[in-house]
Amino acid sequence: MTIIESVPNFSEGRRAEVIAAIADAVRRSGPARILDLSSDADHNRSVLTLAGDTGGIRAAILALVTACVEHIDLSVHRGRHPRMGAVDVIPLVPVRGVSLQDCARLAAAIGEEIGRRFQIPVYLYEAAATADHRRDLAAIRKGEFEGFPAKIRDPLWKPDFGPDRVHPTAGCVAVGAREFLIAYNINLATGDVEVARRIARAIRHSSGGLRYVKAMGVMLEARALAQVSINMTDFRSTPLHRVFEMVRSEAARYGTTIVGSEIVGLVPEEALLQAADFYLRLEGFEPGRVLERRLEESALPAVSPSVRPSPRDGESS
Amino acid sequence: MTIIESVPNFSEGRRAEVIAAIADAVRRSGPARILDLSSDADHNRSVLTLAGDTGGIRAAILALVTACVEHIDLSVHRGRHPRMGAVDVIPLVPVRGVSLQDCARLAAAIGEEIGRRFQIPVYLYEAAATADHRRDLAAIRKGEFEGFPAKIRDPLWKPDFGPDRVHPTAGCVAVGAREFLIAYNINLATGDVEVARRIARAIRHSSGGLRYVKAMGVMLEARALAQVSINMTDFRSTPLHRVFEMVRSEAARYGTTIVGSEIVGLVPEEALLQAADFYLRLEGFEPGRVLERRLEESALPAVSPSVRPSPRDGESS
Repeated sequence: MTIIESVPNFSEGRRAEVIAAIADAVRRSGPARILDLSSDADHNRSVLTLAGDTGGIRAAILALVTACVEHIDLSVHRGRHPRMGAVDVIPLVPVRGVSLQDCARLAAAIGEEIGRRFQIPVYLYEAAATADHRRDLAAIRKGEFEGFPAKIRDPLWKPDFGPDRVHPTAGCVAVGAREFLIAYNINLATGDVEVARRIARAIRHSSGGLRYVKAMGVMLEARALAQVSINMTDFRSTPLHRVFEMVRSEAARYGTTIVGSEIVGLVPEEALLQAADFYLRLEGFEPGRVLERRLEESALPAVSPSVRPSPRDGESS
Repeated sequence: MTIIESVPNFSEGRRAEVIAAIADAVRRSGPARILDLSSDADHNRSVLTLAGDTGGIRAAILALVTACVEHIDLSVHRGRHPRMGAVDVIPLVPVRGVSLQDCARLAAAIGEEIGRRFQIPVYLYEAAATADHRRDLAAIRKGEFEGFPAKIRDPLWKPDFGPDRVHPTAGCVAVGAREFLIAYNINLATGDVEVARRIARAIRHSSGGLRYVKAMGVMLEARALAQVSINMTDFRSTPLHRVFEMVRSEAARYGTTIVGSEIVGLVPEEALLQAADFYLRLEGFEPGRVLERRLEESALPAVSPSVRPSPRDGESS
């Protein structure tokens, strides 16, 4: 089974009936599922979490763009979050049975279709980017909707697909591919936020730590304890348990310990199986040994009546 | 989603065409899936691992019984493993969204139907047993096919369903419900099997250890190391990580360590999530946070345009 996640952000976070109409259009598009919908009135922006296979995700995104073009007019949109389009950004994320490169190719295919069908300029970003200066979403979005009529004339910012002029009401859109992002927080048995900040500096990539870790130290006032707040940007390369163990080791150096950790939002099964595999020191484990996954992918094994040890004859007395 | 596992054992492990015909009948019965099929010529016995929902499992088992009655004649069957029926034993195991008691009720319903339709005496065992002396499968099976014409006349061994006489070719069958059994081995950094035996005695229920643990110490000659070989009979009550940690602690007392552990056969996702939860000290974790599980069970959340923190707006710059 192939699972792709997509977390499109669209520029409406206030009008309940519009948000509902857009979500409805996505829901009716086919087999992809809506896992979450978060709207923020201050940002005037909503974040939809979708999952499905290649065809389902593609149909859902095209339905989303259709509905947003119909309902959102960016020329009158105000909100605190930077934005350049009615559908602002569409990331594609490999979850299972699909690679980051597959998602980058799908981003290009979907971007091409959006440019052609809706006459919206499309920028490919992150793993789908066509040039280094376009990898970073913030760099693409800089100037926002209001600044894009000028920016789009710069040859450096010619769109990857669609016309060379901003759509009057729908703006532009960024479509990209990236790894699954896990928001992961580790709580310390200390009220000293400086300890959390030092640990964050030790573990994060930007100051010499683990490659796919972003981190900062914050104070959880309600619980009077300090927290290392982490974004894991590629859990397959930098797994949860490695971060946990590094924080444990750094915390000991300050005479404190880990109280607990928390995963914000959803987490792919594989990230937790990695941890079980590590701590139980499993030999030869692979996810196909999980009953539920075998059930999904099951096919009758070739019948072989030759003697082989019964792997799980629970009834043998 | 409801998942029940069933691991029926049937009395044919040599004739490939018969085994294939029986497996085919099960496969054509409906939505239940065959996860594994192991045949042992010495035992002259096969073990089928099935999974599905209530209706699928019921249809698969009835198809299995039909095919075994047709193809197997126990009056000419020889093999090393004790057996009393063409279909010898049918355990039902709760995996997800279903309780042990649900499986016990299903065992009774399936047992009733087997007794009535096939005129085979049926004994309910383990969690489905109707009397304490019938809980244990070995006690029921004692005497085997050849001894049953006498045993069945004893009022203590009157069948739960079906006639009071043994089926001439299909014998009798035991249908029961039990928890999922995990075969779990822990390998030690020592070649001294006595250490593994002592650890096995420390952790197993029969000699004062954990309630749902059976264990013995064995020598892995090929790797020249000792192993604690474990059957976990209820991983929800006695989880893997607790056994692992107890073995680690006992091993340290003998100056040795754990080299690795292995899960034989399949394992329910929940057993590994328990371990990840324990070692990562997760706060407020529940399996619904796993993306794949949310995808299975997804429904659109109520649209609420009120301000709430975006749980995973990975695109916010």
